[in-house]
Amino acid sequence: MKEILSTKNTMIKELKKLHKKKHREDNQEYMIEGFHLIEEAVKANAQIKWILFNQRGESEWSAWLNNQSQEQLIRVSDEVLESISELPTPQGMIAIIMMPTEEDIQLEGGWLLLDNVQDPGNVGTMIRTADAAGLSGVILGEGSSDIYNTKVLRAMQGSNYHLPVIRKPLVEMINKFKAAKIPVYGTELNPEAIAYQKLTGLDQYALIMGNEGQGVSSEILELTDETIYIPIRGAAESLNVAIAAGILMYHLELNK
Amino acid sequence: MKEILSTKNTMIKELKKLHKKKHREDNQEYMIEGFHLIEEAVKANAQIKWILFNQRGESEWSAWLNNQSQEQLIRVSDEVLESISELPTPQGMIAIIMMPTEEDIQLEGGWLLLDNVQDPGNVGTMIRTADAAGLSGVILGEGSSDIYNTKVLRAMQGSNYHLPVIRKPLVEMINKFKAAKIPVYGTELNPEAIAYQKLTGLDQYALIMGNEGQGVSSEILELTDETIYIPIRGAAESLNVAIAAGILMYHLELNK
Repeated sequence: MKEILSTKNTMIKELKKLHKKKHREDNQEYMIEGFHLIEEAVKANAQIKWILFNQRGESEWSAWLNNQSQEQLIRVSDEVLESISELPTPQGMIAIIMMPTEEDIQLEGGWLLLDNVQDPGNVGTMIRTADAAGLSGVILGEGSSDIYNTKVLRAMQGSNYHLPVIRKPLVEMINKFKAAKIPVYGTELNPEAIAYQKLTGLDQYALIMGNEGQGVSSEILELTDETIYIPIRGAAESLNVAIAAGILMYHLELNK
Repeated sequence: MKEILSTKNTMIKELKKLHKKKHREDNQEYMIEGFHLIEEAVKANAQIKWILFNQRGESEWSAWLNNQSQEQLIRVSDEVLESISELPTPQGMIAIIMMPTEEDIQLEGGWLLLDNVQDPGNVGTMIRTADAAGLSGVILGEGSSDIYNTKVLRAMQGSNYHLPVIRKPLVEMINKFKAAKIPVYGTELNPEAIAYQKLTGLDQYALIMGNEGQGVSSEILELTDETIYIPIRGAAESLNVAIAAGILMYHLELNK
């Protein structure tokens, strides 16, 4: 087990750079905070590089820490933990995780595809809902938020370890779904589209949700088999995209 | 029409205090920013006290401003608008609205009741979804977030003007629903509760959503007629409360 007590330590300085997206992508690593998320990552066999903890973390989770590979553990001072943490109140434990390598995914069941969804909280919540509803995976198309920032990681509550979440160009993926004879549905605020309640009995599907302001882009909509919408019955102009995705995923999964 | 050019103006200093919850409640007034929300408020006959605009607001929305009561209008300098605004980029127009007085509400149709929902974004999104799904109103119980802070007002996108949103003790309201023979449903992460898909054909109902961490309190659950849950089929531990509310409200409203 290592021990680092100074915030000026070179390794600590390097780890802090993981708050930047570019550094995360260059190093293919990211940081998670708090025991709950770290426990989820370990359970899911994520590739853990380091687990840093201060005295509080060590006393609260000593039994769990004893069960981890000792070579991964780094005991740090409160100052070091605070200097790395992005939380107002650091939770005693931080882990550095290696990003998953490209998986051989199987196109079957239900898939959620995100076209340029920009709010990190929305992306994280949709991945968590896809996990809860029982979808097979999530594909992040061009423009969709990076999932390895702290806000998305917190909104996902570990769901990124439960189902594949893959960054891929949507056009390429839509063509693959079509080749596999899986129907591809766009979503649109357009009462002339198919009301979602009519879609039942779909064992397999790809569902595309779009940008918070503009919706799914017209180039992507043209490639879909059909467009569906959620009826708006009150005076609201639209639904939040994560709410709309939740309604659609639960409807499709529970009416297979 | 008034004109205020100095940030040291007494009235401007008073208006700034509306960023504080206590001052909003004492004065029964709140502030909204941006043309879209202000237009929604005017359309819905909200009680407008003042509309402040800078040169940009005046040039973009001159026709609309001409149609408003000139006694409500205050032309201000960019500095004044910036000093009042809570947005990183002020949008040229700010309005001061008087809070609605207690309405005589009619207990019919579907109602959403919030028990200690603390995240302002969640509360705002749930009110917007209740509006979209066609519910009759929303009741904010003890501990639920104030709806007149900027984040909730933005998440609601004007839905607070489309249906009654009332702050009332939940126990009192549950008793009123029961006296009116309207079934009251609690929600719980408990697979022994009734799966929500089984609830159909309900013309009237009260649906209670609970705190982000603890759910609906046990004292409130004891008062309900039944407890329902949303099946979790993947490995996620729970759903975000606003997502769960969206799934339930759309299911209940579209299966009346």
